[in-house]
Amino acid sequence: MSQLGLLPRRAWASLLSQLLRPPCASCTGTVRCRSQGTRDLSPQQVLVREKILDLVVSCFKRHGAKGLDTPAFELKEILTEKYGEDSGLIYDLKDQGGELLSLRYDLTVPFARYLAMHKVKKMKRYQVGKVWRRESPAIVQGRYREFCQCDFDIAGQFDPMIPDAECLKIICEILNGLQLGDFHIKVSDRRIMDGMFAVCGVPESKFRAIGSSIDKLDKMSWKEVRHEMVAKKGLAPEVADRIGEYVQCHGGVSLVEQMFQDPRLTQSKQALEGLGDLKLLFEYLTSFGIAEKVSFDLSLARGLDYYTGVIYEAVLLQTPAQARDEPLNVGSVAAGGRYDGLVGMFDPKGHKVPCVGLSIGVERIFYIVEQRMKTSGEKVRTTETQVFVATPQKNFLLERMKLITELWDAGIKAEMLCKNNPKLLTQLHYCENMGIPLVVIIGEQELKEGIIKLRSVASREEVAIKRENLVVEIQKRLSES
Amino acid sequence: MSQLGLLPRRAWASLLSQLLRPPCASCTGTVRCRSQGTRDLSPQQVLVREKILDLVVSCFKRHGAKGLDTPAFELKEILTEKYGEDSGLIYDLKDQGGELLSLRYDLTVPFARYLAMHKVKKMKRYQVGKVWRRESPAIVQGRYREFCQCDFDIAGQFDPMIPDAECLKIICEILNGLQLGDFHIKVSDRRIMDGMFAVCGVPESKFRAIGSSIDKLDKMSWKEVRHEMVAKKGLAPEVADRIGEYVQCHGGVSLVEQMFQDPRLTQSKQALEGLGDLKLLFEYLTSFGIAEKVSFDLSLARGLDYYTGVIYEAVLLQTPAQARDEPLNVGSVAAGGRYDGLVGMFDPKGHKVPCVGLSIGVERIFYIVEQRMKTSGEKVRTTETQVFVATPQKNFLLERMKLITELWDAGIKAEMLCKNNPKLLTQLHYCENMGIPLVVIIGEQELKEGIIKLRSVASREEVAIKRENLVVEIQKRLSES
Repeated sequence: MSQLGLLPRRAWASLLSQLLRPPCASCTGTVRCRSQGTRDLSPQQVLVREKILDLVVSCFKRHGAKGLDTPAFELKEILTEKYGEDSGLIYDLKDQGGELLSLRYDLTVPFARYLAMHKVKKMKRYQVGKVWRRESPAIVQGRYREFCQCDFDIAGQFDPMIPDAECLKIICEILNGLQLGDFHIKVSDRRIMDGMFAVCGVPESKFRAIGSSIDKLDKMSWKEVRHEMVAKKGLAPEVADRIGEYVQCHGGVSLVEQMFQDPRLTQSKQALEGLGDLKLLFEYLTSFGIAEKVSFDLSLARGLDYYTGVIYEAVLLQTPAQARDEPLNVGSVAAGGRYDGLVGMFDPKGHKVPCVGLSIGVERIFYIVEQRMKTSGEKVRTTETQVFVATPQKNFLLERMKLITELWDAGIKAEMLCKNNPKLLTQLHYCENMGIPLVVIIGEQELKEGIIKLRSVASREEVAIKRENLVVEIQKRLSES
Repeated sequence: MSQLGLLPRRAWASLLSQLLRPPCASCTGTVRCRSQGTRDLSPQQVLVREKILDLVVSCFKRHGAKGLDTPAFELKEILTEKYGEDSGLIYDLKDQGGELLSLRYDLTVPFARYLAMHKVKKMKRYQVGKVWRRESPAIVQGRYREFCQCDFDIAGQFDPMIPDAECLKIICEILNGLQLGDFHIKVSDRRIMDGMFAVCGVPESKFRAIGSSIDKLDKMSWKEVRHEMVAKKGLAPEVADRIGEYVQCHGGVSLVEQMFQDPRLTQSKQALEGLGDLKLLFEYLTSFGIAEKVSFDLSLARGLDYYTGVIYEAVLLQTPAQARDEPLNVGSVAAGGRYDGLVGMFDPKGHKVPCVGLSIGVERIFYIVEQRMKTSGEKVRTTETQVFVATPQKNFLLERMKLITELWDAGIKAEMLCKNNPKLLTQLHYCENMGIPLVVIIGEQELKEGIIKLRSVASREEVAIKRENLVVEIQKRLSES
């Protein structure tokens, strides 16, 4: 009866699933204790993120953006047919009775849904939040199933390319501000890409699929991409070769001029529109002082379905010295584009609100900054405690409590050990380990004389001060340091 | 063929579900566009939240807490059997191949899982994040299916009641800091409750179920709760009556003393332990200066399974004048307790880490502050823009772009209209509407003379300044205001 074969079917299945599950890399148990592709952020990581997000958000605010927040999940139908080949990566919630829901995949579709639902015709907004994608976790490269996005978007009818140019300016300000080294922004336009497909002979039904293949050119060679297009997506080889001539072109505004002379491409009306807008964009980028950071690159496709105009992607450049330590391609750290049709998809009457926006790839940036801190051995305090309340005396807990209450109530960041009778040495060691700059020491003698000892942890100097001056004295020292 | 009865079954089902779905209250469409019980936060709401969360987090940091972040979803088994009767409210993710996942229900269980998984024995941490519960949405009372929690917890082996008292101190500091009016904290202990159940004759298997009934005493009368215990949960009426005598008791430390004399309750060893700890707790609360805010209340039960010792809940008190406008019971705005067994449930060897913590009910607080702002008619700027770049001239877009670039690059928050040739009046109206204090005006004449006009929106005064002094002059004015 105790043989495995005699177990009930459900118990079998449960046992098997336990056995087949790979052990958890982070804990010693054979049973996983955290979902694959997610992670906990340690206090040190939380701190690094806080600093980076502060810089990003303050740039968004510098450009007049308002904050917005939307729910983590949307109705499943809101997310349907927005993400092209990546739609399979959407997390669905279980049907527990009620609506069919999905976790948001990005912050753009919820923003468009917000604009349509609240009938907002004009808005400059930023949003910072987590999004979820069921990717096969490749954790080493900083790709997770849960990750943070920082988005800035301008919605509304404006004169051409002015908001688009501002988005590129914002990307430059943020990447400069974060001091991640040199970077470069590739720009193209969906209309130029679609026009190119049309004049090369791609059937319209294959535009998005071929676009997805082109999008892989930053990870795969042209030969591999060509193979995918021909063998997997059924494109005629001569059509693929015609595309090949274009996608290997990149350059500045001169390439735009060159394409204006291209006898094939100029047959497409929409390609001409796209080229005209790119020319204007480069003019604005010159006024914003960032034209030399941007190049026109026909290999840029961007996988998402909803783009309708200008698209862009920023990549970090590495010096040869850096490249020796790490793989050369650190990938995209910011991207975005124009999506003039998305809001209309959510409006009952199809009213359109033109939008353009960008998303900062903060997870990659977190990863780079963390790696840099590891290399430099830089240590960061994870608490902000300014003063520690100590005693050499036994049975002095209540006195410590009264004293620390004074400090907390004055807004001073203070800690004490949660022990009845800790040793003085233990208390002082704690301060040194935690980087707490000041110690207040109270004992029987001090209590009688109405004084308090104030000790600097760094210099180990102690001074006696009047108990009633304690808060003022501490505030003075903290403001000096 | 066009009759409904001849439609394929799937099309039928889809049509029916469209027809049966209630219309969306927020948009005009008959199709819902946002999940029930969730909401979008407007820029104004985001701002209110930011201010409140800043105050809460700065209090946590003042007490030496470190930040932590955990994923939005956990393995389903991590959340199982932790939440008592409320477990049915957990959102599960769809099984799309791979692990069975659930959205987190609170921040406490993920924290305990974190401690066990990373073998952390001691930690003072805070976490701010969203949690999800499938409650029937009663949106009027500020209860949503997605909401924000702010948690502070102390994990580790310390001398009794010192961390517990600090948690109560933190609740007081936060509620005082937020200036929400008078408040009150009810305290009890799981061991006293369980001891009371035992000596009253509740079978041990019914402890948690009867506890859940008691927990409803803030919303239901004793008569109704008694009925639930007897009729629905099968408790003997005389047992219910014995419980009734206890749960109507509340008072200060004197009630603790009184219970020490209670011939029935003192038969329970664990009740005596709980009473001893409460006595100590009140001593510490006196040293922290908050004893008068706290009362011992035997009707406090807290629904969650994982508490093992002290439990507490803070409620706002309303003056009779306020009560006339709003319902008297604004409900709990902070709560927490001790959970010494939870971490051990996630450790392969069952190693325990004692923990005590608190959660601030920020959603209710947001609601109260928003209501107060509505009543007072207070208007809040949702952008921080300091300077607007305007021109009375046509074809001056590139000049405006160059000028605003100077401001942005100097860290000044600046905006301009995304139009080629906006009217000056439109530009000045925009500043007045948005509360932007300063306008920089550039035109043909100014460009020639190398000057710029700086205009104060409030006073409508204009001064001419040298173009090269622009940034310095603006920074001077902004620091003065």
